[in-house]
Amino acid sequence: MDFVKRVTTEGTPNFVPEADRIAIFDNDGTLWPEQPICIQFIFAFDRLKSLTRIRPELRQIEPFLSVMEGGLNAMTTLDATEIVEIIKVAQSGMSTEQFSSIVAEWLAVAKDLRFGRVYTELVYQPMLELLDYLRLNRFKSFIVSGAGADFIRVFAERTYRIPPEQVLGSTTLSELRWGKDGPMLMKIPQVDVLDEGPGKPPAIDRFIGRRPIFAFGNSDGDKEVLQWTAAHPLTGFVGLLHHTDAEREWAYDRDSNVGRLDEALDLACANQWTIVDMARDWNTVFTPERATET
Amino acid sequence: MDFVKRVTTEGTPNFVPEADRIAIFDNDGTLWPEQPICIQFIFAFDRLKSLTRIRPELRQIEPFLSVMEGGLNAMTTLDATEIVEIIKVAQSGMSTEQFSSIVAEWLAVAKDLRFGRVYTELVYQPMLELLDYLRLNRFKSFIVSGAGADFIRVFAERTYRIPPEQVLGSTTLSELRWGKDGPMLMKIPQVDVLDEGPGKPPAIDRFIGRRPIFAFGNSDGDKEVLQWTAAHPLTGFVGLLHHTDAEREWAYDRDSNVGRLDEALDLACANQWTIVDMARDWNTVFTPERATET
Repeated sequence: MDFVKRVTTEGTPNFVPEADRIAIFDNDGTLWPEQPICIQFIFAFDRLKSLTRIRPELRQIEPFLSVMEGGLNAMTTLDATEIVEIIKVAQSGMSTEQFSSIVAEWLAVAKDLRFGRVYTELVYQPMLELLDYLRLNRFKSFIVSGAGADFIRVFAERTYRIPPEQVLGSTTLSELRWGKDGPMLMKIPQVDVLDEGPGKPPAIDRFIGRRPIFAFGNSDGDKEVLQWTAAHPLTGFVGLLHHTDAEREWAYDRDSNVGRLDEALDLACANQWTIVDMARDWNTVFTPERATET
Repeated sequence: MDFVKRVTTEGTPNFVPEADRIAIFDNDGTLWPEQPICIQFIFAFDRLKSLTRIRPELRQIEPFLSVMEGGLNAMTTLDATEIVEIIKVAQSGMSTEQFSSIVAEWLAVAKDLRFGRVYTELVYQPMLELLDYLRLNRFKSFIVSGAGADFIRVFAERTYRIPPEQVLGSTTLSELRWGKDGPMLMKIPQVDVLDEGPGKPPAIDRFIGRRPIFAFGNSDGDKEVLQWTAAHPLTGFVGLLHHTDAEREWAYDRDSNVGRLDEALDLACANQWTIVDMARDWNTVFTPERATET
């Protein structure tokens, strides 16, 4: 709040005009959980199960063979190239509109095994409040994720109030085709990857065209984008979510395979970035259960 | 105005919520002139002249040799690959901030040979009014250009009131480097090309994530994006600027090398898209000369 007050008080040296109030957020582990596995991978796995019924030949080749035999846990052992192979198959072969419907239908019913709630209810309440607070102060917030922009865009508007055009991430590409209702976009098995780590600042330059003054992340994959934001010539706020709450959510940092937080944590301490300790600092973790929920 | 009224009147079947009021505009030939040559190429040519003083070896190799010998006119004879070679050299080797400063300095002084005015004053007054009108009606307007987003972003905010994050186009890519003030982005000699024609709809999907309900262009390079917008499941407005005014601007269409308008013109006639005939329909072409101008 000190930072926001500083950059929004007109006539002071730190005042930042509305147009330059760009805030960026990581998604997995920053706005919703990423343990025990990235939620998009659960979607891709479920979709792969359906697909292999229609295309049984997929069961004969890697990495599909291992995943269909080893189950969801096998997804966590794949390297980046293998993940991309899975995404290529799971997220192509339909129109962009059809893909969005498939994701929306999945999100409406698939539930987290531990918490028993649909994933869009497992977003972090304090982060929603932070997004609202920034919006109120005329910041424009973007999601910048190494995961699928095409996946996140389906729920970001309703869940975070962040419109599709403010979601950056990897995506399966599309091609213009002529369908029965005229031109449409068909998703093809080709992935444009937004690389974590040093890849995030160039992607922000490509899509947004200016350096953010506010960045929030939770892992070493956000290290460079946080450093780059902290070094903004005018002013930069940097926040880091530390997952310390095994009881209400998860506790992991330096030794985790998913969302490892090691070098970025050292940097945050050394540079006095704002570290949010989930167990200590958050009264509530997830959005409250709604009374009307079925 | 009929269209805007239709989609903004609540309670009617054609009402479109604010979030979905996405409008896209081509830049060259739609918002400012593209004759006798794309303005960004004049910038690249001027920059090449400076660069070859520092790097005379460039004068020995193609396509630089032809361009430095043939002058600006030689730029119009280059193919797409050669243009990319020029852009790679002219628009890399400095930080993203330095590049923006170089463009801004050039735009402040370089004048159009025929009209004797700086280029940002040669934008079309009726299109500025259209942008304002859409803004007033809660549309979000984007520029989608095959030319350089990194170039257009420098003046789009002040000139069109379109912020950098709403400008899509080709761009030289950047890489994170450590400078004396910490991390910065260095532009590298690698171009991410936004292809004209059938490449525009997939680029819009990649960056914006939804189909526009409003599109304005002026050449066959906009054909597919206009067809795709016209086929929007809810409603779509499509406009085409026809350059018919050799006296006040330029007159060209089916036989032009720059901004050829042939197939898209036939489509516009056949589908009753809105065609703006510059000579007939525009009282004013360029922004009025300011009294304070030096």
